[in-house]
Amino acid sequence: MLDRAKRLQPKLVMYRRHIHANPELGFQEFKTSQYVSDQLTALGVEHQRGVAKTGIVAVLGNGNGPTIGLRADMDALPLTENNDTSYKSQTPGVMHACGHDAHTAILLGVAELLAKEEINGTIKLLFQPSEEGGADDRSGGKLMVEEGALDDVEMVWGLHVGSGETSGIVAVADGPVTAAADSFVGSVMGVGGHGAFPHRSLDPIWLASQVLPAIYGIIPRRVDPTKKAVITVGTIHAGTANNIIPMKVDMTGTIRSFEEDVRAQLHAGLEQAFSIAKAMGGDYVLEHPYGYPATVNDKDAVRHIRSAAEDLLGKDHVVEAHPMMAGEDFAYMARKSRGGFIALGAAIGDKPRPHHHPDFDIDESVLHIGAAVMAETVRRYLGK
Amino acid sequence: MLDRAKRLQPKLVMYRRHIHANPELGFQEFKTSQYVSDQLTALGVEHQRGVAKTGIVAVLGNGNGPTIGLRADMDALPLTENNDTSYKSQTPGVMHACGHDAHTAILLGVAELLAKEEINGTIKLLFQPSEEGGADDRSGGKLMVEEGALDDVEMVWGLHVGSGETSGIVAVADGPVTAAADSFVGSVMGVGGHGAFPHRSLDPIWLASQVLPAIYGIIPRRVDPTKKAVITVGTIHAGTANNIIPMKVDMTGTIRSFEEDVRAQLHAGLEQAFSIAKAMGGDYVLEHPYGYPATVNDKDAVRHIRSAAEDLLGKDHVVEAHPMMAGEDFAYMARKSRGGFIALGAAIGDKPRPHHHPDFDIDESVLHIGAAVMAETVRRYLGK
Amino acid sequence: MLDRAKRLQPKLVMYRRHIHANPELGFQEFKTSQYVSDQLTALGVEHQRGVAKTGIVAVLGNGNGPTIGLRADMDALPLTENNDTSYKSQTPGVMHACGHDAHTAILLGVAELLAKEEINGTIKLLFQPSEEGGADDRSGGKLMVEEGALDDVEMVWGLHVGSGETSGIVAVADGPVTAAADSFVGSVMGVGGHGAFPHRSLDPIWLASQVLPAIYGIIPRRVDPTKKAVITVGTIHAGTANNIIPMKVDMTGTIRSFEEDVRAQLHAGLEQAFSIAKAMGGDYVLEHPYGYPATVNDKDAVRHIRSAAEDLLGKDHVVEAHPMMAGEDFAYMARKSRGGFIALGAAIGDKPRPHHHPDFDIDESVLHIGAAVMAETVRRYLGK
Amino acid sequence: MLDRAKRLQPKLVMYRRHIHANPELGFQEFKTSQYVSDQLTALGVEHQRGVAKTGIVAVLGNGNGPTIGLRADMDALPLTENNDTSYKSQTPGVMHACGHDAHTAILLGVAELLAKEEINGTIKLLFQPSEEGGADDRSGGKLMVEEGALDDVEMVWGLHVGSGETSGIVAVADGPVTAAADSFVGSVMGVGGHGAFPHRSLDPIWLASQVLPAIYGIIPRRVDPTKKAVITVGTIHAGTANNIIPMKVDMTGTIRSFEEDVRAQLHAGLEQAFSIAKAMGGDYVLEHPYGYPATVNDKDAVRHIRSAAEDLLGKDHVVEAHPMMAGEDFAYMARKSRGGFIALGAAIGDKPRPHHHPDFDIDESVLHIGAAVMAETVRRYLGK
Repeated sequence: MLDRAKRLQPKLVMYRRHIHANPELGFQEFKTSQYVSDQLTALGVEHQRGVAKTGIVAVLGNGNGPTIGLRADMDALPLTENNDTSYKSQTPGVMHACGHDAHTAILLGVAELLAKEEINGTIKLLFQPSEEGGADDRSGGKLMVEEGALDDVEMVWGLHVGSGETSGIVAVADGPVTAAADSFVGSVMGVGGHGAFPHRSLDPIWLASQVLPAIYGIIPRRVDPTKKAVITVGTIHAGTANNIIPMKVDMTGTIRSFEEDVRAQLHAGLEQAFSIAKAMGGDYVLEHPYGYPATVNDKDAVRHIRSAAEDLLGKDHVVEAHPMMAGEDFAYMARKSRGGFIALGAAIGDKPRPHHHPDFDIDESVLHIGAAVMAETVRRYLGK
Repeated sequence: MLDRAKRLQPKLVMYRRHIHANPELGFQEFKTSQYVSDQLTALGVEHQRGVAKTGIVAVLGNGNGPTIGLRADMDALPLTENNDTSYKSQTPGVMHACGHDAHTAILLGVAELLAKEEINGTIKLLFQPSEEGGADDRSGGKLMVEEGALDDVEMVWGLHVGSGETSGIVAVADGPVTAAADSFVGSVMGVGGHGAFPHRSLDPIWLASQVLPAIYGIIPRRVDPTKKAVITVGTIHAGTANNIIPMKVDMTGTIRSFEEDVRAQLHAGLEQAFSIAKAMGGDYVLEHPYGYPATVNDKDAVRHIRSAAEDLLGKDHVVEAHPMMAGEDFAYMARKSRGGFIALGAAIGDKPRPHHHPDFDIDESVLHIGAAVMAETVRRYLGK
Repeated sequence: MLDRAKRLQPKLVMYRRHIHANPELGFQEFKTSQYVSDQLTALGVEHQRGVAKTGIVAVLGNGNGPTIGLRADMDALPLTENNDTSYKSQTPGVMHACGHDAHTAILLGVAELLAKEEINGTIKLLFQPSEEGGADDRSGGKLMVEEGALDDVEMVWGLHVGSGETSGIVAVADGPVTAAADSFVGSVMGVGGHGAFPHRSLDPIWLASQVLPAIYGIIPRRVDPTKKAVITVGTIHAGTANNIIPMKVDMTGTIRSFEEDVRAQLHAGLEQAFSIAKAMGGDYVLEHPYGYPATVNDKDAVRHIRSAAEDLLGKDHVVEAHPMMAGEDFAYMARKSRGGFIALGAAIGDKPRPHHHPDFDIDESVLHIGAAVMAETVRRYLGK
Repeated sequence: MLDRAKRLQPKLVMYRRHIHANPELGFQEFKTSQYVSDQLTALGVEHQRGVAKTGIVAVLGNGNGPTIGLRADMDALPLTENNDTSYKSQTPGVMHACGHDAHTAILLGVAELLAKEEINGTIKLLFQPSEEGGADDRSGGKLMVEEGALDDVEMVWGLHVGSGETSGIVAVADGPVTAAADSFVGSVMGVGGHGAFPHRSLDPIWLASQVLPAIYGIIPRRVDPTKKAVITVGTIHAGTANNIIPMKVDMTGTIRSFEEDVRAQLHAGLEQAFSIAKAMGGDYVLEHPYGYPATVNDKDAVRHIRSAAEDLLGKDHVVEAHPMMAGEDFAYMARKSRGGFIALGAAIGDKPRPHHHPDFDIDESVLHIGAAVMAETVRRYLGK
């Protein structure tokens, strides 16, 4: 399988570079979707367009067996690329800075690897839009689930390249691997006025100075220290002049967790922290909607990845993944069906190329490895 | 009058040294009271004992005119004297460290200066116990008022020596001169537990860490910056072991102000600050009783002091007093009648001898000045 | 004098309304300056233009005696007027929202009242630009002093209308009446990064949450509680996205005081508060230049105002002014010469019309009172 | 093996009850040690007394093979027992409130189970004093290591009963199972003085109010959120009177972690938090010595426990242990040799009987299970 995949490598690079050069934001993957469709047609793979707006579901297999899924996300980020390569983004302000171009190329590779095989069962290739949406109403993965694309799928796998992990190494783990990622938008409200007469106002910056430490105290004082959690206040904005007390302080932030009880504690703690403004005579508004849930890997799904990857790459190329506080909307699929999320190292050289950064890039030589591991994983599962 | 007073100076020193060597705490001025009574008897001054427990009210004048008052406090402090003088405290743990010995000696001097004069009206010499009580139910001044000693008094004067002010200088001011001095006792309550499992407790030290800045914020953010105010947290106590989260944090403090609206703001702000513990899921108890009110000098009372002092000592020996955040229970008398509080400088040498300190001492040479100013002030008032 | 002034009232209203309808910002008082010059010329009053850029100095008197000054400020504020009057601002975004239009009209009234009088001495009428500049390098008053306009002036008076004070009441006080008004601009700097990985960043919003309470603690814990002081943080800005830890937090604020030692304490305390960011491993930059100093009234200058106002208006129309934390660049003149600042109540109806607010307006009927009090004050001074 | 152990159950109960009724504090286990020695002698087991002061090392086996260890701790806690049982503590103020009585009884049971067996190798039974010491210089486990008792031991097992875990369930896990437990003692120092004159002091309670949130911020802002950590401030004490600003605030606390880099971060962060007092013009002293390290289980050691327990009790009686922030000085032995720490559920009824609590008690029926699992684990290891 690895050899067959290796022969596809030039084609996968071509796919990836084409997509990389033509990035599109979430739910606007029109050209990307067309491109994927064209390639699938060329491979003779039956597929349905317009799933979750700009997504595609392709189907392989003879139907005599279980239905499983393989997912790739297709959207780019609102960044201007800083790299100077032949395939750099042609669209200023939009860039594949998280590797979704690679994921799509890899899944096209899987399509080619498995298109001609006799498969007992059904493999759905889920080309998903808008993974970077952040909020659940902006999630292509969630929308695919809601539209029923996963209804008959008993197990689903996804893959993510990592620009900071050793190239060619596969990392997997049972249980939670990416965090629930919620956000909040809040305001602490006082009474504005002249900076020289604080007693005639109720200074909301002062109120906020009491709310912030209460927020920071939630994790070290209220949450089980053996559990993973983050609350970050990412923005704080108030005021227009040095000598005017503003009416309110606006804040936004992110809330990360793995367990639902911890998640609930963080949300309750945040509400309590903002309520201090009220206890001090002011007021507050606070919205903290749930975003992507945690991605929780299924033991069986992981076992099949590990088995496939160890046989293809050798045991020393497969390591235990460490859960991380980042979010990922594959979580919705892994909740609907049972799921397995694969991390594939793709670091390139010594220069840091962090995800979501204008310098992001990956080692393309891993593309065929990703395709081989995904293809072999499902082959083994369906062959069970 | 100053000459006559000067001739009394050796006697006043004797009085002061005797009282200094035999200090007694508030409402326990048994020997002091006896001593004062003995001197008044020797001077042929009619007086009543047992007023406000250990106090004395002496009476001068022919009764053909208004009744006015002159007040001296007699109690000492729970300190062990650090000075090595011939007249140092003979009672370990008790010391005249605020000059009440001098006040009593001066008022005895006034008695002698005025005893033989033809006075149209009535002068009450109020030898008051327990000024240092702090709380209003420990105040000898308040008790004298409650027992009716001031009922017929239309104006009352008191005097305080100052160990930090230039010797022989009289300072007076209209309006507020000493602060309202209230106290509070509060506890912030959480849930105790093992220090390694904070999530099973509600850490009250964490809650207190939110209450404290809210307390400190009251004055700079809620109170008119042109008004004078203090809230000090004087004690904080919680916990018995480094790895046990305690059940509660105990705090006490003092609240100082001049105006009643500011006083009310401070008390309300304190309540609000503690209520943060409740907003965070804990609880609190808080008592913040009113203590001594502010001493507010009457314009007329001050005018008579100033006139008497300027004529006796010269204009350059009479200055404008600066209000201070210290408390003084003469305030109750000045509220009942109209009052005038006189500050008399009595600094001795370069070494700091702060009030309420084991090193406290005063320049005794001012004793006759105090007596002369008090006597002349009332003479002028009654001669009006 | 009051009768003569009353006869000028319609003219003063005309002046004021013309200036009100044509507001100009600081150092851009081109039309205002021209208008003032035209009126002075019409009155036959000699004057020099171009002082402190757009200011005017007019001169009255025979020169046989001391030189004194009377000052009015001419600039407007960057606000859009909310009132619907016949004389409302014709310039969107610019408005006389602090009464400088009235001050200028009043000083033109003084010119007319005194123009024909035999005056022993010299009266300089100082029509000053840019009072609202805030920083000392934006102060028209300071620039007039620097250009020497006050060099030969032994005493100077200014007047300010108050939209919140009872119409027709004059308030004066010895000593400090407006505060030193300084500003600060600072940033607390950490290390930016992904909100899900706080340990890879140094969160500057967290650092700021430690700096803010330290700022609020300066006044209640470090400054003499009998002194007046304010530090207000007016703006705080940081961050662009809920899940990104920003690199820094920007803050600005205002620092108000009366005494130079308190001013120095506030500035030092602010530096110390920001230094907490450094103690925690981050960094900070902070500028806190001195702005307008406190306006400190001269006793003699005040005595002449009081005498003139009491005789013109009656004793019950002259009250003791309360110092306020607002700033005023008349302070520079009162430092150069001896100064007296007059507050003239001009409240109109029940609706609050706060200074620096789009609803601001005054009771125009006080214009001639202001002119009469100013004219009579200097007449008495020069007649001494 | 389980059957043989079950037959010993009455004897184990007797052992446990005798020890329970006669509790002794750390390094004072004189009677306990004598009792253990007597039982070992009765069983014909060779042993050495006086190891680590009051400890005992007994030896089993023929010496033809590896040397391994089994450890039990023997000390009690300074608590007065609240239970009313026939075997309750006879010593007021001292109580076996953590189950060390059970551990000792179980290890005596192991001695009997293995005393007659042919063992290829050497088994050291380590009866350890003073586990509850807390600081490393009070640790009996550390002292045993230092005295060389573990020098020739290649693997060591310990067992702990849990009054909150289901009776009869064995829990084990690879890697860290108990936390590194360090402590700190610190003071924040200002300048004391009268509560009415805060500006003449430097209020250390104010300084502490800035240090506390900085401490609470270390974990949520500086430490990897996927790592486990606790800092608890357990005590805070300052001041003697409501109106006196004290000189200093004393604090103590506990610091828990698993990884050495996290531990170092916590200690550095604490130092930084206290340094805020210095940045604000005050000072601090802080000691934060390392206490017990984390107990890190060896994979092989755990595999042998799991294999033995699953075979003896059934798979459903063996669960994955969850690491906890509690400390345990078995850590020193597990660092010296390779170690395996076994948790044995022993909950009794519904009433909570928390460790280190006067109500603590366990279900004695698990004693023979503990002995069987320990004995079988080492038999399998030596039989490998």
